[in-house]
Amino acid sequence: MNHQESLTAYIAAVVAELIFSGVTDVVVSPGSRSTPMAMIMAEHPDLKVHIHVDERSAAFFALGIAKSLNRPVAILCTSGTAAANYFPAIVEARYARVPLIVLTADRPHELREVGAPQAIDQIHLYGKHVKWFSEMALPEKSEEIIRYARTVCARAVAIATSAPSGPVHLNFPFREPLIPKLDEELFQLNERPNGYIKVQNGNLTLSDEHFQEIANRLTKTNKGVIICGNMGDPEFPKAVTQLAEQLNFPIIADPLSQLRSGQHNLENIIETYDTFLRVDDAKSFLKPDVILRFGAMPISKALTIFLKENGSAEQYVIDGGGGWRDPSALSTNMIFCNESLFCEKLLSYTVPNSSSEFLMKWKKINGLTKENMTALRDITEISEGKLFYQLAEMVPEGATLFVGNSMPIRDLDSFFLNNNKEIKVMANRGANGIDGTVSTALGAALYSKSFYLVLGDLTFFHDLNGLIAAKLYNLDINILLVNNNGGGIFSFLPQSEHSKNFELLFGTPLDLEFEHAVKMFKGEFTKIEDWDHLESEMMKATNQSGLKVYELRTNRDVNRDEHREFWSFVSEEISNFVKGE
Amino acid sequence: MNHQESLTAYIAAVVAELIFSGVTDVVVSPGSRSTPMAMIMAEHPDLKVHIHVDERSAAFFALGIAKSLNRPVAILCTSGTAAANYFPAIVEARYARVPLIVLTADRPHELREVGAPQAIDQIHLYGKHVKWFSEMALPEKSEEIIRYARTVCARAVAIATSAPSGPVHLNFPFREPLIPKLDEELFQLNERPNGYIKVQNGNLTLSDEHFQEIANRLTKTNKGVIICGNMGDPEFPKAVTQLAEQLNFPIIADPLSQLRSGQHNLENIIETYDTFLRVDDAKSFLKPDVILRFGAMPISKALTIFLKENGSAEQYVIDGGGGWRDPSALSTNMIFCNESLFCEKLLSYTVPNSSSEFLMKWKKINGLTKENMTALRDITEISEGKLFYQLAEMVPEGATLFVGNSMPIRDLDSFFLNNNKEIKVMANRGANGIDGTVSTALGAALYSKSFYLVLGDLTFFHDLNGLIAAKLYNLDINILLVNNNGGGIFSFLPQSEHSKNFELLFGTPLDLEFEHAVKMFKGEFTKIEDWDHLESEMMKATNQSGLKVYELRTNRDVNRDEHREFWSFVSEEISNFVKGE
Repeated sequence: MNHQESLTAYIAAVVAELIFSGVTDVVVSPGSRSTPMAMIMAEHPDLKVHIHVDERSAAFFALGIAKSLNRPVAILCTSGTAAANYFPAIVEARYARVPLIVLTADRPHELREVGAPQAIDQIHLYGKHVKWFSEMALPEKSEEIIRYARTVCARAVAIATSAPSGPVHLNFPFREPLIPKLDEELFQLNERPNGYIKVQNGNLTLSDEHFQEIANRLTKTNKGVIICGNMGDPEFPKAVTQLAEQLNFPIIADPLSQLRSGQHNLENIIETYDTFLRVDDAKSFLKPDVILRFGAMPISKALTIFLKENGSAEQYVIDGGGGWRDPSALSTNMIFCNESLFCEKLLSYTVPNSSSEFLMKWKKINGLTKENMTALRDITEISEGKLFYQLAEMVPEGATLFVGNSMPIRDLDSFFLNNNKEIKVMANRGANGIDGTVSTALGAALYSKSFYLVLGDLTFFHDLNGLIAAKLYNLDINILLVNNNGGGIFSFLPQSEHSKNFELLFGTPLDLEFEHAVKMFKGEFTKIEDWDHLESEMMKATNQSGLKVYELRTNRDVNRDEHREFWSFVSEEISNFVKGE
Repeated sequence: MNHQESLTAYIAAVVAELIFSGVTDVVVSPGSRSTPMAMIMAEHPDLKVHIHVDERSAAFFALGIAKSLNRPVAILCTSGTAAANYFPAIVEARYARVPLIVLTADRPHELREVGAPQAIDQIHLYGKHVKWFSEMALPEKSEEIIRYARTVCARAVAIATSAPSGPVHLNFPFREPLIPKLDEELFQLNERPNGYIKVQNGNLTLSDEHFQEIANRLTKTNKGVIICGNMGDPEFPKAVTQLAEQLNFPIIADPLSQLRSGQHNLENIIETYDTFLRVDDAKSFLKPDVILRFGAMPISKALTIFLKENGSAEQYVIDGGGGWRDPSALSTNMIFCNESLFCEKLLSYTVPNSSSEFLMKWKKINGLTKENMTALRDITEISEGKLFYQLAEMVPEGATLFVGNSMPIRDLDSFFLNNNKEIKVMANRGANGIDGTVSTALGAALYSKSFYLVLGDLTFFHDLNGLIAAKLYNLDINILLVNNNGGGIFSFLPQSEHSKNFELLFGTPLDLEFEHAVKMFKGEFTKIEDWDHLESEMMKATNQSGLKVYELRTNRDVNRDEHREFWSFVSEEISNFVKGE
C-alpha cells in the first residue's frame, strides 16, 4: 500500500470523525511531526483551525473555547516537550470537567527510546489526568483500520463529553515522509458510510424510591438551605430556583453558579454570605438542619467554616459527574444524579412549604449586608473591593466576566451582587491556578460578545504571552488589570506576620510596566486615574473592539486594611441587628 | 507532639540534607502550601534561593544552573497546576541527563480527591520522566522519621546525579498551619549527627578482557573515525583527543561535544562535515570501517545519512549513562562505560598507529571546505549563515554560547569552526524543544561570565517572560535574536513545497516588535543595521552588563536560498578536488 495514500486516508478519517462527533475547533501549534494532521485539518471546511505557537497557551486557549461553547475542542502538537507544555491546561480541564481532545504526534515505534531527536516517551504522558489514553495504530488504509480509527475518535469524544467531562489523549505515531495527498476527494472519500458508531451519552438519575425518600426528608424541615458552587449546565438556574421556591430554601450562590445574574427568579438568591458568615451572631441566627449542595466547592472560606460548624446538619451532595466533592467530610448523603434533573424531579415529589420564617431570616441578613455594602461607594481611592462591587453595573447586558484566581475571584465572591443582566461568570476553578488565565479568557472571548477579564498582576504576567492570540485573531477583550505589584492574597494569610523574607517569598513584586507588553501585542493600555475615569472608559469600552487593558494600581497593605475595616464595620451592624431580633 | 515543632524539625532536616548532598541553589515559585519549605530554605546560609513566579520558566532556569554548574539544583512550588508547569523542563532534564531535585508541596491525604481547592493528584505526577518518585511522610520530629527524611533526600540527590543524571521528584504533604518556627537553632539542631548515610556514586567501566578485545579490533583498522555528540564531562576533550592521536582517527565533533573550542589538541577535530558530507564524491572518499561514537546523537542530518550509508562499518556506541542511543539501529557494539575512562584505558591498551592516510583525507576535505567557507565573509546583507561563521571570532575568551534549537543549532553545526578560545557551547538537546530556552540560558548565565544566547524569534517568543529573571537578578546576557518572523526551518522541509496553508501552519509569522518586551524587562534593545554595526556592538558588549538584545532581521526565503547556493558552490569545489586525487 502506498505510504502517502495510507497516511492521507487514515488521517482524513480521523479528522472527519472528530468533526462528526462534535468538534468544531482545533488549536494547532506548529511542528514537523504533526504535519499531516495539521495539513488535513486546514483542508476541512467545517473545522476552525487556530494557530498558537506556545503549546501551554494553546491548550488553555482551547480550554477557554470549550468552556464558552460547552463543546469538545481539540488541540494538536508535535512530539517532544511541546506535548509536555499541554500538561497544566490538561490538569485544569480534568478538575474543571472540560472536554479537551488532546492529539499528539509521535515518532513511530522504531524511533522510540533510541535517542532519536525530539522523541520522548508519550505513552500515558499525562498519567491519571486524562480520562482516556489511546496509542493509535500506524496509518493504514484498509477498511478495518479506517473503521478502527473512526471508532476510537467517536469514542474519545464520547468519553471527553460524558459526565464528568474531561480531557482525553490520542497519541499518533507518524512515519516520514509526512506530506499527505491533498485533493478534492480528501473528505468525500471519507464520508461516513452507514454502520459506523454513534454514541448517545446518558445522564445519571435516581430511582423513584430514592426521590421519594429524599422528598420526604426535605418536606419535614423548615431550616433547609441550598448551596450552589461552580456549575456549567444552562438548565440549572431555572431548575434550582424553582425547587428553592417550592421548599422555601435560601440559595447560597457562589458567583460561578451562574445564579447571581440572569432572568431567572433571584428572590431566594443569597449572595453576601461571604461577608455576613464572618459574624458569629449571624451564624447562630441562621443555623440550618438540612443542606443541599450542588456543583464544585464554593470559594468562600467563611462559608466553609460555617458548614464545618454545622456538621450535625444533614448534607446532601448532588453530583451528576459522580465525583466526591466533600473536602471537609461533612456529607451525609452522596447523590450521584444529574443536578438539573434532580431539581426538576424533586419538584414533582414535593409540595410548597408553608413556612418561610427561616428563608426570611437569611433574606433579612443578606439585605442588611447589601445596605451596608453601599458604604463601598464612598471610597474615593482606587480600591479592589469597590471595583468588584461596581462590576455588575459597569459591564453591559450579555457580557462575559472572566475572573482571575487568588484575590479577584474572592473579591467577586464577596462583592458581586445579584442583578438581572445576562452576565456569564467564568474562572479557572478546576485546580485554581494563576497559570493560563489570559489564554483561557481569550479562548472564551473568541465566540462571546462583550468580554471582560479581571485579574491581578502576577496572573497577568504568568500568561502574558497568551495575549498574542488577541493580536493574531483581532479578539475583542477588555482586561481590568488590578496591579498591586505582587501576590495580594498573602497579605491576608499568616505568612504576612513574618516580615523577614515576606516580600522575597510571598510579596514578590515584579515592578513591571505592562504598557510595553500591551503595545507589543497591539493593544490599548490605559492607566485608570480615578473612578470617573474608569466609568467613562467602561462606557466607551462597550463600543470598542480589539485588546484593551485598563490598569488599576492598588496597594497590598492598604487593600488588606480596607477589607478588614469593611468587615469589622459590617459585623457590628449585623450583630446589632441580630441582637435586636 | 507540637505541630509547628514537627513541621520545622522535619523540613529543616530535609533542607540541611539536600545541601549536605550537594545542592547549592533552589528556584522557588511563590505559593501557600509550600510556605514552610520556602521559609526554612530562605534561612539557610549556604543555600541560594532564586524566586521565579512562572513555574515553567523557574524549572528551566534551574535546569540552566544545573547544566552550567554540573550540579544538582532544586525547584520548589506549591500544589496544583503549579507543579504541572514543571513538566516541560523535567522532560528536557530527563533526556538531557541533568540532575533536578523537584520538590512539590501537596495537600495532606485527607484533602485529596475530595474537591479541595488547588488539590490535584500529584502521585507520580511526572510518570516515567523522573528517575525516582517518593511520596514523603507527613512531618514528624521523631528520630526515626528525621532519619528517614534525611535518607530519602541523600538518596534522591544520589539518584539524580548518578549516570545518567536526571530529575527526581519528592512530593511533600503539609497540614495547616504552615508557619514554621524560625529561630537560631533551626539548623544547629539538625546538624548531621554521625551515622547518617553518605552515598558514593560509581562509574561504569569494562573488564580488562573487554578493553583488550576492543583494542585488538581498533589497532587492526586504518579507517576508523570517532564521532562525538553532546557531552558534559570536562575530562572528556583531553581523553578523546589523546586516543584519536594515538589511533590516527579523525574526530567528527558536534558543536555540543565541547571539542571545537579549547586548549586541547585540535589537530584531529573535523568540524565542517555537515557541509562536505552532503557531497557524494566526498562520501565515497571517506568511507570508514570502524566508528567509535560518544555522547548524544549528533545534530547533523548529513552525518546521519553518511552513517546509514556506511551501515556495514562496525559502530561502537560508548555510553556511560547506559542508554540506547542508536536511532538508526546501526550500532554493532553497545558499550556501557564512562566515556573518559574508556578513552584513557584504551590509550594504554593500544599503540600509536603508523598509518595516517585516512586521517589525512578527512583533514584535507575539512581544510578545503573551510577555505571555501571564507566566501561567507563576502556576504554583505545580514545573513544567518555568516553570523554563525563569525561567532567564534566575535565572542571573547571564556564565553558561554547558548544556542536555540531549530535553525540556530543547525547553523552552528554547519558554520562554527575550531578555535583555541575556551568557549562553552550549550543548547537544550534533550528533547530539542524551542520552549524554555530563554530561562535555561539565564539560569546558565547566573554563574558564567560573558554569556551569549543566539536564538530565533519563535524560540524567543515561546519563553519571553523568562526575561524577568534578567531584570530581577541583574543578569548579564547578550542575546542575538535572529528574527526571520516565523519558523525558518520549515523552509528547508518538504512542507514548503505546498504553499496553500504554509504560512498559516508552518511559517507562522508573529509580526512582533520585541523592543517593547525588552524595554519592559529593563533591557537594551539594538536593531543591527549591518556587519560593521554588529561588530562594533559585539566589541562593546564584552564590557557591558545587564540584559542586551541585538536583533538581526533576516528573511526565511532568502536564507534558504543562500544556504542552498553555498552548499552547491562548495559541493562543486569538493567534487573537483576529489576527482583530482
